[in-house]
Amino acid sequence: MAIRKLTFDEIFSRQPGLEELKTLRRVPLYALIQNIRSMHNVGSIFRTSDGVRLKHLFLTGFTPTPPRKEIDKTALGATDSVPWSYEKDGTKILRQLKKKEINLVVVEHTNKSIPYTDVNYEFPMCLIMGNEVEGISQEIIKQADVAVDIPMLGMKQSLNVSVAYGIIIYHILSRYLENNTNVLQSK
Amino acid sequence: MAIRKLTFDEIFSRQPGLEELKTLRRVPLYALIQNIRSMHNVGSIFRTSDGVRLKHLFLTGFTPTPPRKEIDKTALGATDSVPWSYEKDGTKILRQLKKKEINLVVVEHTNKSIPYTDVNYEFPMCLIMGNEVEGISQEIIKQADVAVDIPMLGMKQSLNVSVAYGIIIYHILSRYLENNTNVLQSK
Repeated sequence: MAIRKLTFDEIFSRQPGLEELKTLRRVPLYALIQNIRSMHNVGSIFRTSDGVRLKHLFLTGFTPTPPRKEIDKTALGATDSVPWSYEKDGTKILRQLKKKEINLVVVEHTNKSIPYTDVNYEFPMCLIMGNEVEGISQEIIKQADVAVDIPMLGMKQSLNVSVAYGIIIYHILSRYLENNTNVLQSK
Repeated sequence: MAIRKLTFDEIFSRQPGLEELKTLRRVPLYALIQNIRSMHNVGSIFRTSDGVRLKHLFLTGFTPTPPRKEIDKTALGATDSVPWSYEKDGTKILRQLKKKEINLVVVEHTNKSIPYTDVNYEFPMCLIMGNEVEGISQEIIKQADVAVDIPMLGMKQSLNVSVAYGIIIYHILSRYLENNTNVLQSK
């Protein structure tokens, strides 16, 4: 099987530029992160959000916001391509989203959590994740429509937050694309 | 919907300890990483590998190996729970795996790459990923049975390597668990 690696030029030519991206349809997928401490994680979440063409990223609580050198180091430009805003009080954002009938999916170990692969996601929706150690606050959990978690088959009880975000948001994207291939055809 | 966050004790009590983990059946899923430069990424890949109860992690090329403080900082103990070994020459490992009829799946932008969600994964298999910037070497690509990539809908052409690893390996795990729920029943 003759597999040939693409050149950097070939790879870059497939991606839209910043101006073109603004004209493309976005996936009806929001995300809200609360009290993420690590700028590395925030930058990585921006980069992944660019990958799924997220509609909007809400930074809340004490989550650091761009521009910060340490965020840019992992975001690599995605702070410009992902629509985002900051609001200290995450519950306020969620009340607004609820009014717009946006489904709220929280990632947390709860008494009602179901594996993220077992959910029939409805769009538009917002994925919610919290602090690296403490997780999400109880006030936010109370507002959620559904709580999901990731099967942990080893001895650790959780993954790095930016990895967990990638796993779940890309899974949700794949479910969305099953019925909405036109998003991919835009470029 | 009364969702209650689990306590740390409740969460920890669900996970097997290191000794118990050794007695549990492992997923027939291997991974090989080549020339990963960042110890943060290596640690994160260990932590995710613990989560999927990976059979074995092969570190190759100039990938740093445990024990290193910067790896432990993100692996958080997973360097003890994930079986791993180091071999400079990754092609040698892949020849051995091929003899054992283990399917080789490389993550790379190639002329033959298909989206990672469109593959009918066959087990046992080994997932292969390369350097943060250069990707995987052409020698390794030549040995692969199939090349996959991740849909990139934004302006960036790739994700952080440890996030990409998480997305793909957890997707493969979910496919495996569809027909092998007994792995989950072991605890």
